[in-house]
Amino acid sequence: MEFKSPAKPNQLAPRFTEIATFMRVPIAQTLEEADIGMFGIPYDGALTNRPGTRHGPREVRNQSSLMRAVNHATRINPFELAQIRDMGDVPFTRMFEVEASHKEIEAFANMLIEAEVMPFAIGGDHSISLPLLRAIAKEPIALIHIDAHADTTDSFQGSKFNHGAPFRRAVEEGLIDPTKTIQIGIRGTQNTSDGWDFSAASGMRVVFCEEFHEKGPAAIAAEARALVGDMPVYLTYDIDSLDPVYAPGTGTPEIGGMTTHQAQILLRGLRDLNYVGADLVEVSPPFDVGDVTSLAGAALAYEILCLLAEVHQKRAFE
Amino acid sequence: MEFKSPAKPNQLAPRFTEIATFMRVPIAQTLEEADIGMFGIPYDGALTNRPGTRHGPREVRNQSSLMRAVNHATRINPFELAQIRDMGDVPFTRMFEVEASHKEIEAFANMLIEAEVMPFAIGGDHSISLPLLRAIAKEPIALIHIDAHADTTDSFQGSKFNHGAPFRRAVEEGLIDPTKTIQIGIRGTQNTSDGWDFSAASGMRVVFCEEFHEKGPAAIAAEARALVGDMPVYLTYDIDSLDPVYAPGTGTPEIGGMTTHQAQILLRGLRDLNYVGADLVEVSPPFDVGDVTSLAGAALAYEILCLLAEVHQKRAFE
Amino acid sequence: MEFKSPAKPNQLAPRFTEIATFMRVPIAQTLEEADIGMFGIPYDGALTNRPGTRHGPREVRNQSSLMRAVNHATRINPFELAQIRDMGDVPFTRMFEVEASHKEIEAFANMLIEAEVMPFAIGGDHSISLPLLRAIAKEPIALIHIDAHADTTDSFQGSKFNHGAPFRRAVEEGLIDPTKTIQIGIRGTQNTSDGWDFSAASGMRVVFCEEFHEKGPAAIAAEARALVGDMPVYLTYDIDSLDPVYAPGTGTPEIGGMTTHQAQILLRGLRDLNYVGADLVEVSPPFDVGDVTSLAGAALAYEILCLLAEVHQKRAFE
Amino acid sequence: MEFKSPAKPNQLAPRFTEIATFMRVPIAQTLEEADIGMFGIPYDGALTNRPGTRHGPREVRNQSSLMRAVNHATRINPFELAQIRDMGDVPFTRMFEVEASHKEIEAFANMLIEAEVMPFAIGGDHSISLPLLRAIAKEPIALIHIDAHADTTDSFQGSKFNHGAPFRRAVEEGLIDPTKTIQIGIRGTQNTSDGWDFSAASGMRVVFCEEFHEKGPAAIAAEARALVGDMPVYLTYDIDSLDPVYAPGTGTPEIGGMTTHQAQILLRGLRDLNYVGADLVEVSPPFDVGDVTSLAGAALAYEILCLLAEVHQKRAFE
Amino acid sequence: MEFKSPAKPNQLAPRFTEIATFMRVPIAQTLEEADIGMFGIPYDGALTNRPGTRHGPREVRNQSSLMRAVNHATRINPFELAQIRDMGDVPFTRMFEVEASHKEIEAFANMLIEAEVMPFAIGGDHSISLPLLRAIAKEPIALIHIDAHADTTDSFQGSKFNHGAPFRRAVEEGLIDPTKTIQIGIRGTQNTSDGWDFSAASGMRVVFCEEFHEKGPAAIAAEARALVGDMPVYLTYDIDSLDPVYAPGTGTPEIGGMTTHQAQILLRGLRDLNYVGADLVEVSPPFDVGDVTSLAGAALAYEILCLLAEVHQKRAFE
Amino acid sequence: MEFKSPAKPNQLAPRFTEIATFMRVPIAQTLEEADIGMFGIPYDGALTNRPGTRHGPREVRNQSSLMRAVNHATRINPFELAQIRDMGDVPFTRMFEVEASHKEIEAFANMLIEAEVMPFAIGGDHSISLPLLRAIAKEPIALIHIDAHADTTDSFQGSKFNHGAPFRRAVEEGLIDPTKTIQIGIRGTQNTSDGWDFSAASGMRVVFCEEFHEKGPAAIAAEARALVGDMPVYLTYDIDSLDPVYAPGTGTPEIGGMTTHQAQILLRGLRDLNYVGADLVEVSPPFDVGDVTSLAGAALAYEILCLLAEVHQKRAFE
Repeated sequence: MEFKSPAKPNQLAPRFTEIATFMRVPIAQTLEEADIGMFGIPYDGALTNRPGTRHGPREVRNQSSLMRAVNHATRINPFELAQIRDMGDVPFTRMFEVEASHKEIEAFANMLIEAEVMPFAIGGDHSISLPLLRAIAKEPIALIHIDAHADTTDSFQGSKFNHGAPFRRAVEEGLIDPTKTIQIGIRGTQNTSDGWDFSAASGMRVVFCEEFHEKGPAAIAAEARALVGDMPVYLTYDIDSLDPVYAPGTGTPEIGGMTTHQAQILLRGLRDLNYVGADLVEVSPPFDVGDVTSLAGAALAYEILCLLAEVHQKRAFE
Repeated sequence: MEFKSPAKPNQLAPRFTEIATFMRVPIAQTLEEADIGMFGIPYDGALTNRPGTRHGPREVRNQSSLMRAVNHATRINPFELAQIRDMGDVPFTRMFEVEASHKEIEAFANMLIEAEVMPFAIGGDHSISLPLLRAIAKEPIALIHIDAHADTTDSFQGSKFNHGAPFRRAVEEGLIDPTKTIQIGIRGTQNTSDGWDFSAASGMRVVFCEEFHEKGPAAIAAEARALVGDMPVYLTYDIDSLDPVYAPGTGTPEIGGMTTHQAQILLRGLRDLNYVGADLVEVSPPFDVGDVTSLAGAALAYEILCLLAEVHQKRAFE
Repeated sequence: MEFKSPAKPNQLAPRFTEIATFMRVPIAQTLEEADIGMFGIPYDGALTNRPGTRHGPREVRNQSSLMRAVNHATRINPFELAQIRDMGDVPFTRMFEVEASHKEIEAFANMLIEAEVMPFAIGGDHSISLPLLRAIAKEPIALIHIDAHADTTDSFQGSKFNHGAPFRRAVEEGLIDPTKTIQIGIRGTQNTSDGWDFSAASGMRVVFCEEFHEKGPAAIAAEARALVGDMPVYLTYDIDSLDPVYAPGTGTPEIGGMTTHQAQILLRGLRDLNYVGADLVEVSPPFDVGDVTSLAGAALAYEILCLLAEVHQKRAFE
Repeated sequence: MEFKSPAKPNQLAPRFTEIATFMRVPIAQTLEEADIGMFGIPYDGALTNRPGTRHGPREVRNQSSLMRAVNHATRINPFELAQIRDMGDVPFTRMFEVEASHKEIEAFANMLIEAEVMPFAIGGDHSISLPLLRAIAKEPIALIHIDAHADTTDSFQGSKFNHGAPFRRAVEEGLIDPTKTIQIGIRGTQNTSDGWDFSAASGMRVVFCEEFHEKGPAAIAAEARALVGDMPVYLTYDIDSLDPVYAPGTGTPEIGGMTTHQAQILLRGLRDLNYVGADLVEVSPPFDVGDVTSLAGAALAYEILCLLAEVHQKRAFE
Repeated sequence: MEFKSPAKPNQLAPRFTEIATFMRVPIAQTLEEADIGMFGIPYDGALTNRPGTRHGPREVRNQSSLMRAVNHATRINPFELAQIRDMGDVPFTRMFEVEASHKEIEAFANMLIEAEVMPFAIGGDHSISLPLLRAIAKEPIALIHIDAHADTTDSFQGSKFNHGAPFRRAVEEGLIDPTKTIQIGIRGTQNTSDGWDFSAASGMRVVFCEEFHEKGPAAIAAEARALVGDMPVYLTYDIDSLDPVYAPGTGTPEIGGMTTHQAQILLRGLRDLNYVGADLVEVSPPFDVGDVTSLAGAALAYEILCLLAEVHQKRAFE
Repeated sequence: MEFKSPAKPNQLAPRFTEIATFMRVPIAQTLEEADIGMFGIPYDGALTNRPGTRHGPREVRNQSSLMRAVNHATRINPFELAQIRDMGDVPFTRMFEVEASHKEIEAFANMLIEAEVMPFAIGGDHSISLPLLRAIAKEPIALIHIDAHADTTDSFQGSKFNHGAPFRRAVEEGLIDPTKTIQIGIRGTQNTSDGWDFSAASGMRVVFCEEFHEKGPAAIAAEARALVGDMPVYLTYDIDSLDPVYAPGTGTPEIGGMTTHQAQILLRGLRDLNYVGADLVEVSPPFDVGDVTSLAGAALAYEILCLLAEVHQKRAFE
């Protein structure tokens, strides 16, 4: 018997075995070996309600072991299209301070981008999209934002950088082009209509969940594709876009949301866009039941990975 | 710093803080200060299967903290339209006897009605609708009844007042007009067809869940509106109308039920009716998982509150 | 007071009482008294992922107490159409060996068939369908297979008889006619497309879940009826055909699956076929939350029982 | 293969198999075949706090499957000393009325006693001990009462027969001799000291939990043995005598209670008394976690069964 | 029927009813009406590991409904000895900044102290003891500190005010006299011995859990009494002093801890000290199972309340 | 920012971060770099009751993140005394066959031993100790066996190698010296006394749990030390030695067991023995609640690691 380092997990082994990495991909030994770098952002210092997303990356890794290679709907095998690696977690040293933490996230993402590794982050609360966009967007890019909340409100408890505001900040900082931004699945009560109003006023296309249910995910995906065109685009997926029965393990659940089937059809409708990065956020394992949220997060991360791997390969062949 | 009594919770504070009242409204200090009085009926002495709805009001209060003010679909803010107060719970002194307990519920509702407070009760098992109707209905009124069960069966274990029979009793007692009654979402096995037969024979419109799924909630809501017209109408919402995955925390779950999205569309289709009271019943926290049932109960109670507040304001302006 | 043996449970008693048998039917005292024999196969020795289906029969018995007699949609009362008995569980003596265990399952099913008892098994992992088919199929029969997985892959960990392969084996052994086989609800990642390819190449009709969601359960049921015609047909229902929120308690959950409502419509569309047996498998109570999976399993087993009892009665009257 | 009725479970089979009876004993076909009759009382209509003990018998049956035959400490095998049978549950027909329900319990126990079957009931709330004592005690008998609560308070919500009062009633009705009564493990807050005062004034020996912890279970058992002597004695075991971590699944948990090890030592110190019946009450599965309460209930019921079987055999040989 | 405001809950009502306040005491309408003010500090912004203590006050309120008036061991009824009120929660406006949050806590405590209300806080993470001590300690006071951790480490992630360091800071700021400080129950791994070393070097008496188990809670309580004498003393109780099975719902569980019985004996051994305030911290409901931690927290808070009420009354009579 | 491979986790980072390895030690890149190799055996193919231990290694890794470096009782820091590495899991290829699986375990252990890596396995069911002993014991060695079960019964369901028999086989195969074997914590019912009789007859010292509770862990540890002397000794720790409230997540729970504090004292009493390997087995996450079992497993594995690291260092200095 020869020793095989567990840093290189085997996707063909029984799925309950081995050290849990994202999708059972190898652990990166060097920065350069990766085409797509999945990494965790175990941070929940900017949320406004129920905590726990700091535990998200760990549990998404755990449940992602259930994923296998080939997508039954598209027959894509992302692991054949790109070198995908688990880059570990952003190493925090100032986690009690929102802005300092965001700087550490940005630095980590910058490190990947400089090495030409496409970043795919697993959060963490939604505030993390802002520092990721700061690292990625050299000029305003397009945004596909799937979420129950528009996340364009303003300060809460004295902080402009809370998890309900990242995309207002991103517009203000010139990181995203609001006219090339689509928000899908929006719903739930708010204390004022301020956030929804900002989204509308800035030119974002806001698809409330009622419209989403009525038109269906394929139509909405088509609209998103048309809107975004071939601009560089960032995809941010908040697990609370799903209905609370599909994602009880999140901080701010809102009834009336998407099913996982709808989310799959939506994501599969977003192939061949010019992705420059992605995140999946707000999985909060302490509030989960039966790991259904972490499993949904892992399975939708797999769908996103198919999107990213496909575009990586196309770029490689250009 | 000045002391602010926690009897007046702050809807803008972080949602995990403060003493839990329904929707974080103030606790009534006097009877008269309320336009709409939310109150709990922590009673499960008349149920026939799994217990626990006595804990319903407490947990719906708890989860209702997640609600905020403005409805994203209708843009209604019920707290601006009416003075809404938490009136506490019906104070029981004879909880081992079904009929004595029902008298205590009726007396509490009478107290509210005499003070011109619109009653909105959170149960409790479904038997409580009968004493509430006794207090409210001076002549036969219309009924919108959303439930998995017709609740028109007869005696069980020697009692005519069990939670499977309130609306048969209400017809017999002349509290509701069966030809102005619609039952929506009915399904699940029964030992005999007796209850369904009573509903049909008395002239009620019974929408089984298969028909509901086929026609959709908006069409069914339209039919209910047409049926009820401008008669005084009572709205009773049994949480087991939802599918068991949306409401595992209930005594008699039946698969094949509504989604919360369907329930929202249904309720939002019932605006501008002549409401004289409402209840939401059968949330059983001991059987809940991850509080999804209490959360759904709270969020649908919020939708019902929007209906009641809107009609209150219109009456005030007439 | 006269003693009544608890071996004859009372379907009219409160549902939380008495010893739990399948659907609260009497326990068989003799083999011959039954027309339809429900029995448990508490076996999970051939699964490849998360275990626990050995506990399935016990919990399906437990939750099936919530079932009553009359089907609200079809108004069938299966207990009036056939003598239904709980036959207990397959008594294992070699549970550590897959093939020996399968022989014991086959012998038990043979015992029933020789006594003209229609077998309806509650698993257990899906490998058990193979020995059941060996007992039932004297020549190739039709198969209606509802599942997330085609279960036509090949060896895993050295065994051809694992729970991912029973229907490939059944084709090879001439137990089922693949051109009279329909697989409904297929989805989820695989390491290779080998299983899907086998299903297609052998002539099976494979309905992936996307197609199922698009066409709807009634249309798919109609297609299944047309395909099967009046051939002897076996119905195998894998609980993981349901979405993980409806069936978290299973070994290999795949997001994007059926709702229980869809499953009910599908099953009710399959009346009047020439059933020779059935199973419902892969309920894994240790992974369940709030017993929703066991409850769904029990309620769908009730729907299947309606199908079997109806055909039994028709045969009895021919 | 020969058919073996599942009414006769096999204690040597894998423990997760077969229909769940108490301790996997056969289901009684006749009244007379039993020496000791275990039966369920799925009743919680007289409790004052959290409900759910109606589900106790079902889950104690379920978890008792984990029990095997020989007691490691005493080497007693109760199944060799007496014919033990599962008699099913008390069949209720008036469960909404406390006194009517109690009469039905009494009638069931009388039926057993007339057939010379020693009754061993699994509850249910603690109010059930009163009707059992009415059936058993033809003159005042001794009582060993293990519990967190003295259960000698008086009326609550208008009923003298609530689960906090059975032993006050039993003294008043001349069913137990308070000077031959010992209450062990008493603790927890009360609104007044009335119950404790009644116990003391009537001559009961009350061992508060602090004394129990200090002297240890063996010493307290010795004292109980000395007090009771050879009088006919009834043993009533309330699961809330255990600390809430050993028995979270109960209606009125009180911290600072017994460990299961202490309970075992206590019960094993009570051999060779003149038992005339026993009960184990207040297991409430809806509040249980990980089935630890039902398991503890089953394992302590096994210890009690050893006591009863041993005395049965001795009587048989006299 | 007369309206009774639910702001004045009734301790004699069924315990599952009414709005949940601490121990079912009235909600304070004014600051002055209280002798002892219980209040919540829903803050977990300074913890270093698993979050969730922001939900602590809410759930301790909920479970404290199970408490009644009279202590069975001491026969004290605290509600007769002092006016105890629920003062609500500290109203935060800067919860993302540790030091700003601490200032808000200090201001709230100051408000109580100025009104001569003895503060008894329910946390929240353990960092909150520091601002409470800042409000209370005009000169160095004695400290009884029951905990798994000495909480005398230093900076973590750049903050000196994290929940592992409050008592190091309190010594440095001259709030506590380390030679009049006793730490009880200390255990668990640390990355360095720095915290333990600080405690020892500053003159604190540190009782590791092994010594605690060996000597027993009564002996340790006696030592604490002797050490503290009649100095003003603050009592801080960290729920993680309990073993993880008694308190799974906490951020940093350490096996080998106290039982609730030991904690009760310890606290009851601390009567008649010169208390100037108290807190109970680190209950984290999202990690709780079956509410056992919240229940233990509520029951130990009741014991502390007995200590405070007794000393209040004595002062009043002086 | 410089890239640091997540294969080298940082024990000083927040404990909820990074890829989960045993105790946050680095992942072995080569076989030779390790002095002590922790590895998982995700195998439950030989158990006789409730399954799930295949998930044990994964969850013990997860919970072991909560461990830090220094033992508060002994002040040992095992990570300074030896190079400890996570070697991954035994790679199975024949998991459906008990004996083939055992060969693969033996081969993996042999690989470590040949490289002079001390094996410390995390199971998995207890059958795995047999192949580990086959690899380790070149002649009969001493055994310290902490467990609820003697595991010296014989065949079950046709297999001699089930998890109730490994130490009977180990005696028969000459792997352990029964007169140098001590079994600690034995309890629970058995169908016959055969296993206990074998242990006694072969000369093992069997400490039933009653004796353990009476004498205490320190005295039993001292006896074990005296018995074993300086023979090579293997330590096997079955998590079900703990009481079910400390370890609900196991297949065969037995009430009346050890506390974690007792287990710690017992293990700390076993320093300076001549260890040649160890295992910790029977953690079954699907049956766990609140991760308390995995946490206890991780914390006791840490204690065992201290024993192994200390002896490693002493050997290195000889």
